[in-house]
Amino acid sequence: MNQHILARRAFAAACTAALLLSPALSHAQPASGKPNKVVLQVSEGDAKKWGLALNNAYNVQNDLGADTTDLEIVVYGPGIGMLKSDSPVAGRIASAMKGGIKVVACENTLAAQKLAKADMLPDIGYVPAGVVELMQKQQQGYAYIRP
Amino acid sequence: MNQHILARRAFAAACTAALLLSPALSHAQPASGKPNKVVLQVSEGDAKKWGLALNNAYNVQNDLGADTTDLEIVVYGPGIGMLKSDSPVAGRIASAMKGGIKVVACENTLAAQKLAKADMLPDIGYVPAGVVELMQKQQQGYAYIRP
Amino acid sequence: MNQHILARRAFAAACTAALLLSPALSHAQPASGKPNKVVLQVSEGDAKKWGLALNNAYNVQNDLGADTTDLEIVVYGPGIGMLKSDSPVAGRIASAMKGGIKVVACENTLAAQKLAKADMLPDIGYVPAGVVELMQKQQQGYAYIRP
Repeated sequence: MNQHILARRAFAAACTAALLLSPALSHAQPASGKPNKVVLQVSEGDAKKWGLALNNAYNVQNDLGADTTDLEIVVYGPGIGMLKSDSPVAGRIASAMKGGIKVVACENTLAAQKLAKADMLPDIGYVPAGVVELMQKQQQGYAYIRP
Repeated sequence: MNQHILARRAFAAACTAALLLSPALSHAQPASGKPNKVVLQVSEGDAKKWGLALNNAYNVQNDLGADTTDLEIVVYGPGIGMLKSDSPVAGRIASAMKGGIKVVACENTLAAQKLAKADMLPDIGYVPAGVVELMQKQQQGYAYIRP
Repeated sequence: MNQHILARRAFAAACTAALLLSPALSHAQPASGKPNKVVLQVSEGDAKKWGLALNNAYNVQNDLGADTTDLEIVVYGPGIGMLKSDSPVAGRIASAMKGGIKVVACENTLAAQKLAKADMLPDIGYVPAGVVELMQKQQQGYAYIRP
């Protein structure tokens, strides 16, 4: 093996090492996924805030494009009414989910308020704890917005 | 070319690669700029909140120094009244901008509320979408504060 | 020194460089500490919000375990009543601190509201400026939650 090949192999190995090491050292930007990531918190029992949260999500998606943007709305605590069957924004939530926006409810809140999944809008997702989800998404590089 | 020079070149190239690759893998800390970065969200139609947001910005600047701190206040949605010509905090905003605090209004909000730039305070900045600005600042390593 | 050893040394040096450089380029994940970090903001003069903030902190701790989770509640501005001697949530704050949740009050707020530490709950911590604390925790990789 000549010197030139050896040196090029050392360089290639070092580049691989840099690539492998860097994600382990930073949660802020995972190696895969869409470049724009936003998690929105809904935790208030105020229907105006529910509309604003949906507006915020749409504005991000419209400006940056659904194909480059991961959006998730996390609903918990007094905000849970946003996702009940009789929600005043039920139609807008169905549209948002059809457009690729993820909408999840907190199972802790359901238990605390004695709600069953049958009381909730169809097709939404669930997470064990809304606040833990908000933390983990930030660890994964999501920007946090509280409308 | 001798072995020693080849190996040193491989090392230098690998260091350069590490430097070039790392920023691409993490948005959390750009290579340039001031060490302290804060973006503040104003999205409520409540003049008390406008005063609190300005207090928050001043407290960061006073404690850390204007020369080491980038501060930006992003105003959108129901908060937009903070930046209209008749804003009750117009004088404080002028002082904040003079002190190096950036203040920007959301053009989406202006359109939705049929406001023209002539209706707004002079010298403020504009962004296409407040919520996108808040996301991008966080990607650039700004801490997010919602007063 | 033969070619093989030289190339391996270049590779090892490059790996070291990648390791040394990466942390300097990212504040989002410090090398030490617990893997889960959350800072909660309390800045509203609304006792319901104080209860919600404590619920949020407990939910994170219950789900992830106190030994893997750093939790800090930063109280400032109109929220300061949460930490006054006559706080309606005084008992819950004592329990939270006993359980390892850090609770800190903003000294700027104390000065502005002419409060002394003797007016406050015992055993709480203090920071010079609540909003600076919130910024710095985010720089250290804490997720931010505003209940």
